[in-house]
Amino acid sequence: MSPEGTAKGVTAPKGFRAGGIACGIKKSGALDLALLVSDLPASAAGTFTRNRFRASCVDHSERVARRGRARAVVANSGNANAATGKQGKRDTAEMARRTAAALRVPAGDVLVASTGVIGVPLPMAAVLDGIEELAARLGAAGGRRAARAIMTTDSVAKEAAVRKRIGGATVAVGGMAKGSGMIHPDMATMLAFITTDAHVPAPALRKVLRGAVDDSFNAITVDGETSTNDMVLCLANGAAGGAAVLAGRDLDVFSGMLGDVCRDLAEKIVRDGEGASKFIRVVVTGAASVSAARRVARAVAVSPLVKTAVYGGDPNWGRIAAAAGNAGVAFRPEKVSIRVGGVPIVRRGEGLGPAAEREVARSLRGKEIEIGVDLGAGKARASYFTCDLTHEYITINASYRT
Amino acid sequence: MSPEGTAKGVTAPKGFRAGGIACGIKKSGALDLALLVSDLPASAAGTFTRNRFRASCVDHSERVARRGRARAVVANSGNANAATGKQGKRDTAEMARRTAAALRVPAGDVLVASTGVIGVPLPMAAVLDGIEELAARLGAAGGRRAARAIMTTDSVAKEAAVRKRIGGATVAVGGMAKGSGMIHPDMATMLAFITTDAHVPAPALRKVLRGAVDDSFNAITVDGETSTNDMVLCLANGAAGGAAVLAGRDLDVFSGMLGDVCRDLAEKIVRDGEGASKFIRVVVTGAASVSAARRVARAVAVSPLVKTAVYGGDPNWGRIAAAAGNAGVAFRPEKVSIRVGGVPIVRRGEGLGPAAEREVARSLRGKEIEIGVDLGAGKARASYFTCDLTHEYITINASYRT
Repeated sequence: MSPEGTAKGVTAPKGFRAGGIACGIKKSGALDLALLVSDLPASAAGTFTRNRFRASCVDHSERVARRGRARAVVANSGNANAATGKQGKRDTAEMARRTAAALRVPAGDVLVASTGVIGVPLPMAAVLDGIEELAARLGAAGGRRAARAIMTTDSVAKEAAVRKRIGGATVAVGGMAKGSGMIHPDMATMLAFITTDAHVPAPALRKVLRGAVDDSFNAITVDGETSTNDMVLCLANGAAGGAAVLAGRDLDVFSGMLGDVCRDLAEKIVRDGEGASKFIRVVVTGAASVSAARRVARAVAVSPLVKTAVYGGDPNWGRIAAAAGNAGVAFRPEKVSIRVGGVPIVRRGEGLGPAAEREVARSLRGKEIEIGVDLGAGKARASYFTCDLTHEYITINASYRT
Repeated sequence: MSPEGTAKGVTAPKGFRAGGIACGIKKSGALDLALLVSDLPASAAGTFTRNRFRASCVDHSERVARRGRARAVVANSGNANAATGKQGKRDTAEMARRTAAALRVPAGDVLVASTGVIGVPLPMAAVLDGIEELAARLGAAGGRRAARAIMTTDSVAKEAAVRKRIGGATVAVGGMAKGSGMIHPDMATMLAFITTDAHVPAPALRKVLRGAVDDSFNAITVDGETSTNDMVLCLANGAAGGAAVLAGRDLDVFSGMLGDVCRDLAEKIVRDGEGASKFIRVVVTGAASVSAARRVARAVAVSPLVKTAVYGGDPNWGRIAAAAGNAGVAFRPEKVSIRVGGVPIVRRGEGLGPAAEREVARSLRGKEIEIGVDLGAGKARASYFTCDLTHEYITINASYRT
């Protein structure tokens, strides 16, 4: 395997270099500036927060992604450059310009992402010096440092990669993400960068990315919040060789790889959710449509009562039923069955009694909990990942800045 | 003042009797069965939970309310009779029948409400004996006992009443409610019963009740959950004399009285929210429509991050902005201003700096916090009441049944 082959994140695919440094945004001296560059022009696609208070870097990167082509991503942590007005907008543009000049790529081909505190102007002198310095130090093994440089309250760096044969070539999809469970809009919040050396034109890339994000980053929650800076960016540079991946089986395989990387990163975000002591997978089956399944799964996954019950090991299926009933989806309660940790606890709308509850209480002692809700209304299904709601969550979020 | 005149709750209006006893549903021996009866046939209206897992008593009472006429309400606490299948449905019907027989009123004129644990059949022998016993002991001063008999995790009984001149007569609106902040779908959850001796025909009653509930019980949240058993019932028996209140100024005055009683009860529910240490009023102004104002107010009020920040005394306006941006309502961030405790902290989308934050931090030490968000997009406004999210909330909900 080549050095690229051993990398686990964004530099796993060929033709990508990355790196991270401490440019001085974070007072702690931790890494706070990341660069990712493709040696070849790459197709680009992205998904962006729908929060109305979106930062200027989100507007900027959405414009670049809409054109479908990019060469580089510059991302800083420690400061979200959000709610910073016209100055913030100028700073985003300047980050892109300086990165383009340092890397000698077109100015319109640089994506920008920021994450950190809201409402404070970026220390631009430090950021611009950092870009110059970092541009000279990028490497094909730099994915790990880049992944560390986008962390804020994350306790671990988050990377993922997969390899498969597509169209006669071995292609890789790699990625990195940050986010301690979407629980910090003020540390605004979830970023993911995916790279691939497959040759995927922008329209196809856009389509499969949307699907992959819906099943991963859009299917996790810690507390139902979205942030001002959330974005997922994907660059495909074709460096693996092979035919263009446009449709049919090749696109399906690529789509599966992209989905695997996104889900892997999304799960890592939930597992790193602040205060989390248990990982919860909500699986809704028997729904009339995928969107109905998703809404019910989300309603259960965001419910503070379900999450505190899991934390406390309480086999309180009434909370699961009430949360499902609260999703705004039509179903017949007398058709609904619920399992917790594989143990049936409600069958056709009725509780199965104390013995079942005792067994569920035992299964809740584990660290990985699956909540299954079958609506008995169809064949569609959807999953949502979340974590429990703990005293530690309150402690972290009540005392975050003070 | 008559003895009725001194009552504060559902027996404040003339021609209503009520009472409460311990019939044996609660193991603690606390009051658990309430009866409320109008001496005259009364107009009836109600609003009911939209949760799909609604209990059979909700279906029953909605049918009665739709006909617009009622004589009595029977309500038990300690058991929600929800997710109890066909047996639960039969038990609801039997409660109505037995109450009608004991009070000698038409069987179709009895409303039924239950609140308590989900998934456990009602101890019907105890309930039916209780109905017989209680029917013989109702009184015009029994509102207080009835209010106590519908409590579950509530720490205080919740009553309200107002009096005014309408159409040549002094009319009263009284009410009682239970709910420890909508945070217990498993203790399913929020009930309110409003009485009036005004003569208000059912169509007018329905209309003004809907408006009053939207501005009160539908404008409070502890954690965004709804329950299987929520309902608000209103009985108007005309015992005060005076002309029928149908429209115009009379209806406006009555509507205002109903609104005052509903808001008073709703505030009492939030103040009794479990684990709550602070009362939060979110006031959204400058919205393009009332529904937009309400959605933004709700998004801020349900945000765990806003609620933990208030708990921790953290002037973290980024969380307020991000929650508002997450409401699915279109507005321009650069027009938004935010105040906390009356202190401006964001003006036209930009933070006002450390001095403003210090002042806000001081105001957060109080027990009553007002968060003001002006969207700069119109003239509509709406309020939402909530409480902070505390360690105590987690403790209560993690260990509730175990």
